[in-house]
Amino acid sequence: MTAPMNPRGFASDNNAGVHPDILKAMAAVNGGHVIAYGDDPYTEKAVAAIHKIFGEEAGVFFVFIGTAANVLGLSSVTQPYHAVICPETAHINVDECGAPEKFSGCKLLTCDTPDGKLTVDMIAGHMHGIGFEHHVQPRVVSITQATELGTVYSIDEIRKIAEYTHAHGMLLHMDGARISNAAVALSCGFYEMTVGAGVDVLSFGGTKNGMMYGEAVVFLNKDLCSDFKYRRKQGMQLASKMRYIAAQFSAFLENDLWKANAQHANFMAKKLHDAVKDIPGVKVTRRVESNAVFAIIPPQIIPELQEQFFFYVWDEESSEVRWMCSFDTAEEDIEAFASLLRKLRN
Amino acid sequence: MTAPMNPRGFASDNNAGVHPDILKAMAAVNGGHVIAYGDDPYTEKAVAAIHKIFGEEAGVFFVFIGTAANVLGLSSVTQPYHAVICPETAHINVDECGAPEKFSGCKLLTCDTPDGKLTVDMIAGHMHGIGFEHHVQPRVVSITQATELGTVYSIDEIRKIAEYTHAHGMLLHMDGARISNAAVALSCGFYEMTVGAGVDVLSFGGTKNGMMYGEAVVFLNKDLCSDFKYRRKQGMQLASKMRYIAAQFSAFLENDLWKANAQHANFMAKKLHDAVKDIPGVKVTRRVESNAVFAIIPPQIIPELQEQFFFYVWDEESSEVRWMCSFDTAEEDIEAFASLLRKLRN
Amino acid sequence: MTAPMNPRGFASDNNAGVHPDILKAMAAVNGGHVIAYGDDPYTEKAVAAIHKIFGEEAGVFFVFIGTAANVLGLSSVTQPYHAVICPETAHINVDECGAPEKFSGCKLLTCDTPDGKLTVDMIAGHMHGIGFEHHVQPRVVSITQATELGTVYSIDEIRKIAEYTHAHGMLLHMDGARISNAAVALSCGFYEMTVGAGVDVLSFGGTKNGMMYGEAVVFLNKDLCSDFKYRRKQGMQLASKMRYIAAQFSAFLENDLWKANAQHANFMAKKLHDAVKDIPGVKVTRRVESNAVFAIIPPQIIPELQEQFFFYVWDEESSEVRWMCSFDTAEEDIEAFASLLRKLRN
Amino acid sequence: MTAPMNPRGFASDNNAGVHPDILKAMAAVNGGHVIAYGDDPYTEKAVAAIHKIFGEEAGVFFVFIGTAANVLGLSSVTQPYHAVICPETAHINVDECGAPEKFSGCKLLTCDTPDGKLTVDMIAGHMHGIGFEHHVQPRVVSITQATELGTVYSIDEIRKIAEYTHAHGMLLHMDGARISNAAVALSCGFYEMTVGAGVDVLSFGGTKNGMMYGEAVVFLNKDLCSDFKYRRKQGMQLASKMRYIAAQFSAFLENDLWKANAQHANFMAKKLHDAVKDIPGVKVTRRVESNAVFAIIPPQIIPELQEQFFFYVWDEESSEVRWMCSFDTAEEDIEAFASLLRKLRN
Repeated sequence: MTAPMNPRGFASDNNAGVHPDILKAMAAVNGGHVIAYGDDPYTEKAVAAIHKIFGEEAGVFFVFIGTAANVLGLSSVTQPYHAVICPETAHINVDECGAPEKFSGCKLLTCDTPDGKLTVDMIAGHMHGIGFEHHVQPRVVSITQATELGTVYSIDEIRKIAEYTHAHGMLLHMDGARISNAAVALSCGFYEMTVGAGVDVLSFGGTKNGMMYGEAVVFLNKDLCSDFKYRRKQGMQLASKMRYIAAQFSAFLENDLWKANAQHANFMAKKLHDAVKDIPGVKVTRRVESNAVFAIIPPQIIPELQEQFFFYVWDEESSEVRWMCSFDTAEEDIEAFASLLRKLRN
Repeated sequence: MTAPMNPRGFASDNNAGVHPDILKAMAAVNGGHVIAYGDDPYTEKAVAAIHKIFGEEAGVFFVFIGTAANVLGLSSVTQPYHAVICPETAHINVDECGAPEKFSGCKLLTCDTPDGKLTVDMIAGHMHGIGFEHHVQPRVVSITQATELGTVYSIDEIRKIAEYTHAHGMLLHMDGARISNAAVALSCGFYEMTVGAGVDVLSFGGTKNGMMYGEAVVFLNKDLCSDFKYRRKQGMQLASKMRYIAAQFSAFLENDLWKANAQHANFMAKKLHDAVKDIPGVKVTRRVESNAVFAIIPPQIIPELQEQFFFYVWDEESSEVRWMCSFDTAEEDIEAFASLLRKLRN
Repeated sequence: MTAPMNPRGFASDNNAGVHPDILKAMAAVNGGHVIAYGDDPYTEKAVAAIHKIFGEEAGVFFVFIGTAANVLGLSSVTQPYHAVICPETAHINVDECGAPEKFSGCKLLTCDTPDGKLTVDMIAGHMHGIGFEHHVQPRVVSITQATELGTVYSIDEIRKIAEYTHAHGMLLHMDGARISNAAVALSCGFYEMTVGAGVDVLSFGGTKNGMMYGEAVVFLNKDLCSDFKYRRKQGMQLASKMRYIAAQFSAFLENDLWKANAQHANFMAKKLHDAVKDIPGVKVTRRVESNAVFAIIPPQIIPELQEQFFFYVWDEESSEVRWMCSFDTAEEDIEAFASLLRKLRN
Repeated sequence: MTAPMNPRGFASDNNAGVHPDILKAMAAVNGGHVIAYGDDPYTEKAVAAIHKIFGEEAGVFFVFIGTAANVLGLSSVTQPYHAVICPETAHINVDECGAPEKFSGCKLLTCDTPDGKLTVDMIAGHMHGIGFEHHVQPRVVSITQATELGTVYSIDEIRKIAEYTHAHGMLLHMDGARISNAAVALSCGFYEMTVGAGVDVLSFGGTKNGMMYGEAVVFLNKDLCSDFKYRRKQGMQLASKMRYIAAQFSAFLENDLWKANAQHANFMAKKLHDAVKDIPGVKVTRRVESNAVFAIIPPQIIPELQEQFFFYVWDEESSEVRWMCSFDTAEEDIEAFASLLRKLRN
């Protein structure tokens, strides 16, 4: 039985399938019995691979999805009267159906940003009412790397935020659903962008970069997660057959598969940008730093374009659309897409 | 790369791996892009297969694990001042780290049972304080089929509970983590044991019977789940690459794979029972109706036995242990195990 | 024993004491035993007085404080995946330490306003993602009357918001912590501003207008509160000795004490406004429509001024302060205050 | 206007009114303005009086009611995956409509007791699954003093529980809704029964002993409550006009009013016991150690008896009723009641 060739589009990097090496790795651990819930050699191996990146001091916990990684990571370092400072555009703020509030009890304090990136000044705007019991108390700053707008924080930008955050008794959380794309964009490793720059809690994602399911919550200081195993179970995120998440992570990190996948996706986004940027009526709206291209295009051509290459409208009012590239985007997809776009424009 | 042959034990049906047909089905849907979060043809097909069992009127939602199926199913039909009546031994009561209380706000009202099965009389013992605002208000009765003790409700027993439950304005929930084993035990289909008997909300499980991950919350009356999609997302249980859960369910239901797997597991449990029941010093403690065998054995032999065939001690005090069979338990496992047990006894 | 004469300031209308008529009414119900938790003739009488205002169809529930009235009122008509749209400056957003999020699970979607008042356009800005499970679903619009900035919605403004709200399947909540001041400002009764204008759930406040403690959650449609008694108890807001809250409300509504108190407070605010508006260096910043005066004053004089007449700085950066008048503010307080302010300015 | 003489019954100690000295004290603090929310001299004075009892190291926080004192006290020292061990009959388990679960997320693990009192053996029965992430983790033991059945722990009994609790890394919580009655029963002060015996968190009640409203959460170790002020506000329990709660507590503790009230109530219960114990057909069922008398009486006489002296049926099945005495129970009430009971028996 061969897999049908569903057409590739630009809707989302999680509309893509699973990288063949990942699938193979999952099949490879299928023999016999191992203890459920993570007390197995495959999980041990995958955790070791992550320790190799972030240091032995890191606490590493697999969960099913990015929303859970964010919500449980944040919940575990907050009390319900705390607040989390994040950009207005953050996934935790707009795409998780209120899960952070429901599960942690915390309020999100949001900042308008031009490009999805927080700055110290923006954070400072929420630092009032400290010690005043009528106000929620800021406890965590959350940044997304790469951001929901496809932009990427420099290591120095992260470090500045971390310094401010720590100086004010807060912790720095990173939503790394697209951390591979960011690492490739910065030509750096995961370490420099996280531990090295002062991040305390990380949602380490793989699903948007060729995995099937499974993310890791990484605490870069073990003191922060002494009780996380209970929170994960109570948070309905403890996989029984953990070995299949572990196998994915091992394959993802081995031979730098994560890097190859992200390099490809980012490169395809640059290609896509180059292919569409000069089409009349198309206006690229954001810096293309990772695997996303945002553009304003004429609203009347959107439906026909979507029919052949599905994608989402980001902002109805301005007719801004988002095109995501993924590990399996092919050059011919881009050529065909740009060509159709050019044709519809005429 | 071939899968290593981890030794099989009797610890849990989720210590087993994944049935090869399931793995194949997952690989078979891997091509190209489909819309994430369940709006794809594979999910449509799997839902149709479930509709074929329970009727078009059923609401069907995939989640990652059984704990989530239970917790979200219960949360969606309760308010925080409600109570859920269940056996003391219920998975929701003892094995979910308080997730039902945390997520729904509800209290669990538990009943002592001799065999893991509720009766109308037991439920009636909690029906006081109705309408009295100081008390939580019973809203759901939850039964597990097959139970955590390996016993199985007859269809008639379920119907009686359902009648009482509905007569008192409550709903009947079934934790069907091992529903296949129960159906095989009763020689009936899923329908008769659920819709046919008056169940309102079902956690329909597959992971303990050869799947990798993924369970379904099935509302047997669509009115009960008009807003469940929000609860699933907020409950951190909406899979992005949903096609891989869907493919598993399709394979699970096609050609009655579920039945073959459960028949095997149940049959192995009977074999195991027969092989150990007459060993001196071994006392089987529960009726063997599905894929579990419970027995009291001499405490001093447990460690050596566990070393070769891992299993869990159910009750330290009485030295009662639990042996679970699964779809991949082999006859030689049972022979070897019984032989070792017999040897250690001497 | 006589009460000490603590100096009166302009910090808050709940820094004032209790109106003597209210105190007397509390003492008057002190004899003998009545059934606790509200099943007593005093509560019946107070509820009847509120029914007389809002109609027999209203559901009326006493709680201890305004925060609880807001939080429980909102919780009872929402599910955790819902959102509440409110002004950025709303008490529920900035002064309740995240209680709405913690207790209801909902997200607050806030609007920047020039004067603390929502408009239909502002609300419309949040009406996207409807039916999309990744987004919280707007369910309630919450307005404060009079607002936290001392402004007052006209009946027509409320009606327009109610129409939009209902047309979009949402409910209108009113935080009426200072509803008396608003009614006096509009020269209308409670009915016209609430039921008459389309409000669905009301926090009906008295503490800021001469009561000791106790607010009422009023559901203007009984269908909305069939289970509110459980929510109130679970929300830790069911008073055992309810008669003392009831007695306060009866006295508050009898002989229009609420109106006399609010008229006085509003009138004092106008006086205060007139007394300070022409003092050089003092700039009144908000329309004085109820019992609050906001002004920018030189920061260096604030400490000395606060020493004699305590008040709060509203915005450190702009040196904007808030002066609240209450039922017991005396003309001589205003004269002395204005005179000191004038003196410090020189 | 004079207070009507509502007839006194035996339903509950919070069906009684407020002691005149308390009412007077509330009126005495009514003059002028003081800062709201507890930053006032009256609150300072009341806290000092409580410090005098429990030591300067105690954290003292006023809330509105006993349910809130219990729920917030427990929430503040637990995480949602924790469990609270308590008697089946505990107020937190049966009379708070699930507020502990809803607010803290924790599960209550209950013990059957013959007399409402926990023992170390009962607690030990729940000490399994420690460190196992599938189980809730016991964190607090909660006892009620005097219990819901009118019995009283000896100081030694409390000390033994405290030792076990602390030895297992847990904390000891005391629901002291009727702590005055217990202190009188033991002829000891509050200190010996709490700090002295090892209690960590105390709900210090007054409403059932002559106050109008207001309880104190007392942390006998300040480290436990460094953030309690936020929890109280978020828990909707921060009174704006705090001075009136403070005044009640000051009056309650001054001149040992608490003791006089409790002595009277306890004494009346003994009188009641003596007056009814020999009436044929009346069987006193519990030791009368504080202000409650439990008895089995013929069901057919209950309605007529209740009509003149209201009380509650504790257990429908056995026809066990509860009669509570309070600070204002009069000897003639007891005589009249016993006489009616005797008459109805014939």
